[in-house]
Amino acid sequence: MKLGLFPKEIDFFEIFDMAASNLTKAASLFFNLVHVENFNNIDIKTKDIYECEQEGDILTHEIIKKLNKTFVTPIDREDLYTLASRLDDVLDLIWAAAERLMVFKIKEPTKEVTEMAKDLLMTTEVVQKAIKKLKEKKYSHVQEYCIEINRLENRIDRTFRDALGKLFEDVDEIKDCVFIIKWKEIYEHLEDASDRCEDVANALEAIVLKNA
Amino acid sequence: MKLGLFPKEIDFFEIFDMAASNLTKAASLFFNLVHVENFNNIDIKTKDIYECEQEGDILTHEIIKKLNKTFVTPIDREDLYTLASRLDDVLDLIWAAAERLMVFKIKEPTKEVTEMAKDLLMTTEVVQKAIKKLKEKKYSHVQEYCIEINRLENRIDRTFRDALGKLFEDVDEIKDCVFIIKWKEIYEHLEDASDRCEDVANALEAIVLKNA
Amino acid sequence: MKLGLFPKEIDFFEIFDMAASNLTKAASLFFNLVHVENFNNIDIKTKDIYECEQEGDILTHEIIKKLNKTFVTPIDREDLYTLASRLDDVLDLIWAAAERLMVFKIKEPTKEVTEMAKDLLMTTEVVQKAIKKLKEKKYSHVQEYCIEINRLENRIDRTFRDALGKLFEDVDEIKDCVFIIKWKEIYEHLEDASDRCEDVANALEAIVLKNA
Repeated sequence: MKLGLFPKEIDFFEIFDMAASNLTKAASLFFNLVHVENFNNIDIKTKDIYECEQEGDILTHEIIKKLNKTFVTPIDREDLYTLASRLDDVLDLIWAAAERLMVFKIKEPTKEVTEMAKDLLMTTEVVQKAIKKLKEKKYSHVQEYCIEINRLENRIDRTFRDALGKLFEDVDEIKDCVFIIKWKEIYEHLEDASDRCEDVANALEAIVLKNA
Repeated sequence: MKLGLFPKEIDFFEIFDMAASNLTKAASLFFNLVHVENFNNIDIKTKDIYECEQEGDILTHEIIKKLNKTFVTPIDREDLYTLASRLDDVLDLIWAAAERLMVFKIKEPTKEVTEMAKDLLMTTEVVQKAIKKLKEKKYSHVQEYCIEINRLENRIDRTFRDALGKLFEDVDEIKDCVFIIKWKEIYEHLEDASDRCEDVANALEAIVLKNA
Repeated sequence: MKLGLFPKEIDFFEIFDMAASNLTKAASLFFNLVHVENFNNIDIKTKDIYECEQEGDILTHEIIKKLNKTFVTPIDREDLYTLASRLDDVLDLIWAAAERLMVFKIKEPTKEVTEMAKDLLMTTEVVQKAIKKLKEKKYSHVQEYCIEINRLENRIDRTFRDALGKLFEDVDEIKDCVFIIKWKEIYEHLEDASDRCEDVANALEAIVLKNA
């Protein structure tokens, strides 16, 4: 007989798998959205991201409902709650960035948003792999993926800083000012999304440390 | 003999009742503040909201002090802590929005701030009812109110998005740019307040699930 | 034989001491940075703050690793986690403010940033003293320092409000608008740092209440 890490553990990991896969899908849709040569039908494309966001809400709610109804040890429980909440935060922030593209009537993506979106997609892919390895109890692999998430977060951080610096170069007109306000907010949402991925990595590390 | 959900439960619910009632009062004062036909004596009216904010700090501090000194099960304790903290966050954000009206020397409320304030007031009223039903252990009623809070949060979210979109239409002058910066921040505080109400609903649902 | 508050308590307090001392160092470097008569070599000076931020990350990671590997009571454990996380948040926000001075190519500090930096330095010094007294189990001293932290937070809050008000006075030119956007963000980071110090005080009070 094989004993699980938690009672009903399989259920939890299956939903986490779905949540991570749904997140990667949203990050991928966002990355495909912010390409100069391909920046059209924004309404339809953001709608697809919105559907991921809605799906994510359902999955998160299901995890938390199960957590509240299942007896698990308080500590692990808390970590699973954090993991679910932070995964959902990342998705919400990707959706917020996409929504702003539409609400602000952005005409063209910047080089920087494409770069941030690419690295964010890579981060979500690593998050997804880490969650798979957690299920398989391959803890050293989880830790390696966490280091990779942190490395990508640092890279997004640098791109964000460069993007901010560039925004404020040679501001001469009203439209430049409005441009700053809009893009500063979009960049901030993506940077926040990346920070929340780091929180996901921290939650994964906590689980590994307690169970290794 | 009737046994309570927690030891000293009555005390907790009484303070939560007071905190929710104090929050509704602040939301009501804010709603009354942001009316075009009535937008005067801003200093005096915001001072009333500030007094609610101070009262809320005292009540929150009292709850947390009691939580730290009382033995309750770790889980419920954590939920009560979350409930108290998020209720206080909503109040802080309403106060922040009110304070900005004064600091930014706003001359006239927008249609959108009035609408957000109205829905936020309705949300706090539902929060107050939900907390009453929690005390009475009428858990199915609590859950219905939580659904209502989520519905209102979605509505405030849509108004926020529309308000943002409108802010950025036809920006021609410096004063438009300053207008954007000011109102974007006020709207964001109200949208954040509404998000924290959703956190309150989540905390309530968690308590219900564990005790139903 | 003297029994500690927690198993391996000495280790924890030693790292907390180092984290608090590292935070005070960063706040002091930031305060020295934002002086009109001395506003030069920004790159070098912010690099020193960045090193504190990196050191803080290592210390926080070490605390959390120890917390995850050590058996301590769940409650205290949670408080120590909060304490470590909030201390690190303060440091991150001081670094964010410093980084913005560089990224935004700020030419001259404002009177208000100097004032906020001074009060923030004072706050971190009080935080450091409070953590020392916690180690010595002088709980009434800890509580007095917490009151002092809250008092300083209120003062920074007022300076922040005044600074915001001043930013929006007589905006006539594009460069004023850009000036607003830049300084509003820097002030907000410092105000956030001060709010996180209040969270540190709350975590300290929780520990005291449970152990007094």
